[in-house]
Amino acid sequence: MIYLDNSATTKPLQEVVDSFIQATNEFFANPSSLHQLGGQSEQLLDRARNQAAKLLHVSPDELIFTSGGTEGNNLAIKGAALEHKSRGSHIITTAIEHPSVIEAFQSLEKIGFKTTYLSVDESGRIDLKELQQAIRKDTILLSVMHVNNEIGTVQDIEAIGRIAAEYPKLLFHVDYVQGLGKLPLDFRTARIDLCTMSGHKIHGMKGTGLLYKRKGVKLFPLFDGGGQEFGVRSGTENVAGTVSFSKALRLALENEQQGVNRMNVLRNKLFQKLEQNPYVQLNTPKQHAAPHIVHFSVPGIKPEVMIHMLGEYGIYVSTKSACSSKDSRKSQVLTACGHDEERAVSGIRVSMSTLTTAEEIDTFLNIFNASVEKLKVVMK
Amino acid sequence: MIYLDNSATTKPLQEVVDSFIQATNEFFANPSSLHQLGGQSEQLLDRARNQAAKLLHVSPDELIFTSGGTEGNNLAIKGAALEHKSRGSHIITTAIEHPSVIEAFQSLEKIGFKTTYLSVDESGRIDLKELQQAIRKDTILLSVMHVNNEIGTVQDIEAIGRIAAEYPKLLFHVDYVQGLGKLPLDFRTARIDLCTMSGHKIHGMKGTGLLYKRKGVKLFPLFDGGGQEFGVRSGTENVAGTVSFSKALRLALENEQQGVNRMNVLRNKLFQKLEQNPYVQLNTPKQHAAPHIVHFSVPGIKPEVMIHMLGEYGIYVSTKSACSSKDSRKSQVLTACGHDEERAVSGIRVSMSTLTTAEEIDTFLNIFNASVEKLKVVMK
Repeated sequence: MIYLDNSATTKPLQEVVDSFIQATNEFFANPSSLHQLGGQSEQLLDRARNQAAKLLHVSPDELIFTSGGTEGNNLAIKGAALEHKSRGSHIITTAIEHPSVIEAFQSLEKIGFKTTYLSVDESGRIDLKELQQAIRKDTILLSVMHVNNEIGTVQDIEAIGRIAAEYPKLLFHVDYVQGLGKLPLDFRTARIDLCTMSGHKIHGMKGTGLLYKRKGVKLFPLFDGGGQEFGVRSGTENVAGTVSFSKALRLALENEQQGVNRMNVLRNKLFQKLEQNPYVQLNTPKQHAAPHIVHFSVPGIKPEVMIHMLGEYGIYVSTKSACSSKDSRKSQVLTACGHDEERAVSGIRVSMSTLTTAEEIDTFLNIFNASVEKLKVVMK
Repeated sequence: MIYLDNSATTKPLQEVVDSFIQATNEFFANPSSLHQLGGQSEQLLDRARNQAAKLLHVSPDELIFTSGGTEGNNLAIKGAALEHKSRGSHIITTAIEHPSVIEAFQSLEKIGFKTTYLSVDESGRIDLKELQQAIRKDTILLSVMHVNNEIGTVQDIEAIGRIAAEYPKLLFHVDYVQGLGKLPLDFRTARIDLCTMSGHKIHGMKGTGLLYKRKGVKLFPLFDGGGQEFGVRSGTENVAGTVSFSKALRLALENEQQGVNRMNVLRNKLFQKLEQNPYVQLNTPKQHAAPHIVHFSVPGIKPEVMIHMLGEYGIYVSTKSACSSKDSRKSQVLTACGHDEERAVSGIRVSMSTLTTAEEIDTFLNIFNASVEKLKVVMK
């Protein structure tokens, strides 16, 4: 199996699964229970939170464990908007966000918020001047993703954070789901108020995630109840999930630099070889690109046909993001980058992880190039 | 270890953990991915949903997998209220609901909804006439728990459902978290529109849950995004979690009648023996009580002292619900039942599961009675 759909989800590492199982079997008690077993679960939970905080250089009480990236984005965006509605009702994001951001914005529109979607250039980057001009007196939230999940473009989060920091009423949220473990991001330097992370994108377990919430930032909770997670996210804590998240985070960050160096080499090889294929148009920009994503179009070939053909060889790639791949419309990200319909409906995404090898990339390239030839002949 | 805090959480069954691990390792792909691996994950997810639907006698597309009971209650209540605000803004619940219901109502109050909290009698039951009178033309939601998590009182959900069904604009939500696997509830007979279930209360995994949403009922999603779970609960599906939930559900329902019969015997023994202790006041009613919960007060003894004393013997019980046990105020449930402050601050909850044995209950009774004597002597 050559798995190149790591931006959709990753295979959990055995060590991570093991830590999850151990915590599940040995620390099943409810951390909120007053008895000694509950106390042991609570201690384990605290240890997991402290470990994550140390790795991310933040304070433990700035970390909210969630069920994943979609929850993190929705909690950050809806929670900030609903909590601070009295300050203003204008919110800003970009045209190329993940559906969990774009659609949270659309839901807020329905209940009275005013939205601005910043445009992007051909490479998928926003214009800082346009951002400056978009911020109004009643703007309370700015949400910008770090690495785009479809084409891999990296925004200049630090520069955006400097602009946002000039407006004391404005909260700055970053969807860091694709960047975590691939490109470091210092939350404080970038003046981030809210930052979403997901476990299953870094070889962790599904159903786990983390939201960074800078001290002092208030959110309207989506889940009310027992007051867990500092009152922001009630519900019996998934202790094993939190332990597994912190383990996955540690492993991801320990291997980050080495993995990134290796993925950069593989990505550049993909760039070079794919460009030699006359049927291929690269969509991932050469500048400001994450190390693990290479997106390209093969106009005239339906991506689902290519995906199934490669799947027959045990090679797994995707088209748009998994979260919108069953939606037959064209890629909104590619459209926002200014590409025409033919290009926007024929995208293929190769997404690597730190475990991807050079041999896998070579095999993919050979089989992909042969498949394009076959399909082009068939279609003539 | 004698674990009698099963209403806070249960130990996951080995079979359930095994099914979770197998799905985690073998079906890690994103069910939304178009490739063959994604298709396999999707099939497994569908199978888990179909199994749960069959067990609950509902349609698969009426089941929304969630991260647990708190999410289910919040999604049902906030989702129904926000979706149907144009129909009316009055919502009804009871005075003894779980914090995830009561506090969701309080949050909705803050954004303009009008609320009614139905009173309960000494046994913890609502008055159907009071309910009838409380329903107004603009009432859009009624939320009533099946089994109370603190004292075990069972509401007459079918009678309540018959009343609710007379009002076509009124949605009927039931918090079935404590009842599932302990007392059958036919969602259709009881005319339920929305019903919350949790995995970790039935020897399943934490971070798993299910919300029944009757066909045609619309909810405002708390999580927008990729459109998973019929657009009601976006986010990459926790396939292993859903598989483990359906497994736990099957085992719980298969063993339900046998387990309930055994727990009824144990509960009656607890009633009988505890009543013989002059320092004990039973709070769980003899009529309309669930088989697994026995709640009582020992006025003058702080429950946390008793809990720790029993914990020294490896016996684990609780005071109020885990979700409010770190809150030092008196039990709102006991207060609503008309009990005085001394009784409301000295509650102990024994909660069994189908795995609880007669020997465990005997040992608990012996050590509890001896502990009461000791503490009473110390305090004289």
